[in-house]
Amino acid sequence: MRGTGRANEANLPMTNPTDFPPAIAPLDDALRKRLQHVIDHKTKPPGSLGQLEAIALQIGLIQRTERPHVQRPVTIVFAGDHGIAAEGVSPYPQAVTAQMVANFLAGGAAINAFSGVAQCVLEIVDAGVASPLPVSDRLVSLPVARGTRNFAAEPAMTRDEATTALAAGAARVRLHASLGTNVIGFGEMGIANTSSAACLMSRLLDVPIDACVGRGTGLDDQGLAHKRAVLGRALVRHSHAIAPLDVLATFGGFEIAMMTGAYLAAASERMTILVDGFIATAALLVAERIAPGVRDYCVFSHASHEAGHRRMLEHFGAKPLLALDLRLGEGTGAALALPLVRAAAAFLTEMASFESAGVDNRDA
Amino acid sequence: MRGTGRANEANLPMTNPTDFPPAIAPLDDALRKRLQHVIDHKTKPPGSLGQLEAIALQIGLIQRTERPHVQRPVTIVFAGDHGIAAEGVSPYPQAVTAQMVANFLAGGAAINAFSGVAQCVLEIVDAGVASPLPVSDRLVSLPVARGTRNFAAEPAMTRDEATTALAAGAARVRLHASLGTNVIGFGEMGIANTSSAACLMSRLLDVPIDACVGRGTGLDDQGLAHKRAVLGRALVRHSHAIAPLDVLATFGGFEIAMMTGAYLAAASERMTILVDGFIATAALLVAERIAPGVRDYCVFSHASHEAGHRRMLEHFGAKPLLALDLRLGEGTGAALALPLVRAAAAFLTEMASFESAGVDNRDA
Repeated sequence: MRGTGRANEANLPMTNPTDFPPAIAPLDDALRKRLQHVIDHKTKPPGSLGQLEAIALQIGLIQRTERPHVQRPVTIVFAGDHGIAAEGVSPYPQAVTAQMVANFLAGGAAINAFSGVAQCVLEIVDAGVASPLPVSDRLVSLPVARGTRNFAAEPAMTRDEATTALAAGAARVRLHASLGTNVIGFGEMGIANTSSAACLMSRLLDVPIDACVGRGTGLDDQGLAHKRAVLGRALVRHSHAIAPLDVLATFGGFEIAMMTGAYLAAASERMTILVDGFIATAALLVAERIAPGVRDYCVFSHASHEAGHRRMLEHFGAKPLLALDLRLGEGTGAALALPLVRAAAAFLTEMASFESAGVDNRDA
Repeated sequence: MRGTGRANEANLPMTNPTDFPPAIAPLDDALRKRLQHVIDHKTKPPGSLGQLEAIALQIGLIQRTERPHVQRPVTIVFAGDHGIAAEGVSPYPQAVTAQMVANFLAGGAAINAFSGVAQCVLEIVDAGVASPLPVSDRLVSLPVARGTRNFAAEPAMTRDEATTALAAGAARVRLHASLGTNVIGFGEMGIANTSSAACLMSRLLDVPIDACVGRGTGLDDQGLAHKRAVLGRALVRHSHAIAPLDVLATFGGFEIAMMTGAYLAAASERMTILVDGFIATAALLVAERIAPGVRDYCVFSHASHEAGHRRMLEHFGAKPLLALDLRLGEGTGAALALPLVRAAAAFLTEMASFESAGVDNRDA
């Protein structure tokens, strides 16, 4: 399934070329005032629900209603392998990607536990894992290829492969939209994918690579220095990759590209999107560059322990809901934040107003 | 039901005087190592679940098992009125306490919405509300008196009243323990109770009152200065109140005293306790002073927006799970944190180990 390597501007990722990038509707500013009024008249001191008030406002705007709700929430975990792993940028062997996918399918990973607690549908997508995967009804098999190429030497994927991945991610989201899903989170699994995400961040935000590279799943000092050197050289080698799709194809992973397409489709379907950690936020950088406005549909679930994540959050003006020092990926932060989104929707929909409850307002 | 005003050392709060303070068992350090080993061998990089790993360890220690679980979680909201409200320390009239209790009973408050999302039992206790309350099967009616006295002039309650309140709070918790509850959160409602909590904090931590007093539900600068002056004078007037029970009786509210008794009983019943915001943490200060070790059973749910809360958290060496700028009380932070406690227990109980899942560990 490897692409031919020839970039083809006309081979656009959605079924119909005119669908890409999909239209992202701006949020309605008239409704914003009405929603704020409703929030301020709930039986609580104004602002006393802190960030949850901002989330309630956002979900109301996304769903275009004063009574938003969370329906059939989904977490999709995209898995893919990375040629750059050959450079020794991760302390884990590449085989772990496939092993962890098997673990997801068997229900033994953190995202399984957290999806259960959050009562959300969990979908596992093979976006391009290098090693053989177990046969399972639960696996959505959409591999673009058996891992990307090593971007230390050549672009990770062709433009065709990138657009194929974007289209596949978008298609999964549209399927869930047709089943009623209105809140969705994306996770990833891919040994060495912090390297991919760091390069996307460095190029798209024009930030030196050292500020983008962290210890990933647990590098020591020497490993960290090596990772920075490898990625720094790769960025120099691919200095011509500037346009978002080129950047994605050059440094991206298949799971990151699918997630990018998933963001685009989710925003165009007016879903509330739960953004996970470092890699998921890097994919959002690409999506927002391709179709500005995606960010308005995003709830930033947590501040990762991974260096660089905070800087991306600042770029988006985001204040994430959780700061638990997570650095696992898999969509775990997104799943953990889902109950907070439910709580925000619930207070907006269920709470009484001062008037309706007969509660005196302040200084009465 | 007002007490006689005569302090009586023998009139101790539990049914049997020898039960008070109840025995709080220390956590088992031998199990700590075994639990940490289990946590470190789950299919994730060590430490990658951040604070949730510490919570998992703590719940395991509390429940004395490698397979902790959350069973029949409860939030109890204690409501009481405060004589100090007559000094104009809150922007809301005292009648709001009763109105909000009616709102809780009707299901229209934030804690109703959040308890629903968190799927926990919600119990509303009249600990001593001044205004009449609606008749409701859902209300647990245990008023010590119709509000405390104004501690600007005299102690808020007698020692008898304080011990009655402690016993009532403990009894509610023991009832839930008998029904299987192993995780519990406490909330409060009481106009002017940030004044009460600020004085408890100032006296018990020996911190100047200005560092303990915040805007509560929304005071302006003038109101804040007035509140500080009123409370500063009260602290001087009651400079003899030093022992924890005296401090509680002098400055406390009935809802705060019941919550204090509830903490003591919950720790002695080996429950995991979800600590809410400023007022709930002040009650914990009293409980920990009465029976050191209660804190080991506490999960700090959130960092309140209220000034002074962070300082109490530091005192407890606590790193709260949420930082959403909440300042509502009612147990809302505790209810919002419950899914995170569930997630911590779930990963410890449900996740595979590297060995069991056949996943290669790092540097393999």
